[in-house]
Amino acid sequence: MTHAIPQLDPTKKKLSIIAFSGDFDKLTAVFTLATGAAAVGYEVNIFFTFWGLDAIKRKLGRSPVGKGFLPKVFGVFMGGLKSAPVSRLNFLGLSPKIFRYLMRKNNVATLEELVDAAVALDVNFYACEMAMVVLGLQKTDFLPHVKDVLGVASFLKLSEDGQTLFI
Amino acid sequence: MTHAIPQLDPTKKKLSIIAFSGDFDKLTAVFTLATGAAAVGYEVNIFFTFWGLDAIKRKLGRSPVGKGFLPKVFGVFMGGLKSAPVSRLNFLGLSPKIFRYLMRKNNVATLEELVDAAVALDVNFYACEMAMVVLGLQKTDFLPHVKDVLGVASFLKLSEDGQTLFI
Amino acid sequence: MTHAIPQLDPTKKKLSIIAFSGDFDKLTAVFTLATGAAAVGYEVNIFFTFWGLDAIKRKLGRSPVGKGFLPKVFGVFMGGLKSAPVSRLNFLGLSPKIFRYLMRKNNVATLEELVDAAVALDVNFYACEMAMVVLGLQKTDFLPHVKDVLGVASFLKLSEDGQTLFI
Repeated sequence: MTHAIPQLDPTKKKLSIIAFSGDFDKLTAVFTLATGAAAVGYEVNIFFTFWGLDAIKRKLGRSPVGKGFLPKVFGVFMGGLKSAPVSRLNFLGLSPKIFRYLMRKNNVATLEELVDAAVALDVNFYACEMAMVVLGLQKTDFLPHVKDVLGVASFLKLSEDGQTLFI
Repeated sequence: MTHAIPQLDPTKKKLSIIAFSGDFDKLTAVFTLATGAAAVGYEVNIFFTFWGLDAIKRKLGRSPVGKGFLPKVFGVFMGGLKSAPVSRLNFLGLSPKIFRYLMRKNNVATLEELVDAAVALDVNFYACEMAMVVLGLQKTDFLPHVKDVLGVASFLKLSEDGQTLFI
Repeated sequence: MTHAIPQLDPTKKKLSIIAFSGDFDKLTAVFTLATGAAAVGYEVNIFFTFWGLDAIKRKLGRSPVGKGFLPKVFGVFMGGLKSAPVSRLNFLGLSPKIFRYLMRKNNVATLEELVDAAVALDVNFYACEMAMVVLGLQKTDFLPHVKDVLGVASFLKLSEDGQTLFI
């Protein structure tokens, strides 16, 4: 794992997000803020950690994650964006479907579209080294757009002199 | 919907809060921070989004919200401050009552009082345009104190050069 | 209760965290960020409030807290770090055990070790005055490392000119 710190553009405003939650509504907030900021010229860095790592998994669907039995137990419950629950009203898994339906019906981008938009807008994706170790994940488990695996100190360095949100 | 950016006072310190949660305890945190900051002279901006929009609904109680069937399904569960659940220990809806009782007994402002105080202290309330579209809400559904409906870019502009919290 | 504001070192970068959650995974995030930042020279301030106060209780285990019946009801559910639940997958209390096991197995510091490390690295712990009043807690209920009891205004003053996260 490398800890290279990417070159920063000092003329750009900066928004950094620690994406901790794996909930559908919170991930929607992460990517809405990220794409909204990138669209008006911000440098945007997302540091995916814990449940948030789920958003950048390569294969959607209930893929096994990591090595060993226990990471797999978690993996069943971390099945990528298609199965992300809503933080509040998750009646039998209905709510994310309602959200998707409402977003589609009202011409608002869905979560998958927001992730694609973030990639297109050059939002920087980073994966949290410690959470990857705990959950038995490798860089190859993630979308190719994921730029690097970082520890806390490198992420703090990256997010200096900007706004940082924990979601 | 307008996107006018209010005039900023560059001499003031600034606290901006993205109020995403509709939980009683988290909304209490939002308004405690907002009123505490406003009381010592900060410019305070709250951007209500998703479940947080519940805190600024005009009619308290389980009012139907938005248009169409699905927004109504959500509306039943987003019934304004009186029915906001606690994020953690919500035994049969008991916890918010216990909190209210403890706050009252210990002379701490309750959530409704904190909202009133925020209005009196000129805390700026903004509603998130995208979440309103998804949930089928109009500006007229909100408290008259709500200053404007904003998109992400306008909120970022507003919150520049200050602290921003996601709650 | 005092509101003395500690002396700040203007040459240090600063990370402030409002630790609101009592969930095992979120507290792990709080202390991972705090120790990571302190290790690279940041001044780190943690403002424990609501459920987060649980992390700095003197006695671990299901100790009664505060005075009176209702604070005790909450106290049963706020039993210190050993019983902190995970925010998402908390099957019968299994998840924190799995996390601890995975952290141990992969040589990642456990939550208790991270708290010890934060103390050793001179991370500043503060307790939120209002939440203590609501929950019936005294400064003597907390770890001796807790530096002070603060209101919102004092915490905002402390966290000025740095990054602030709400977790």
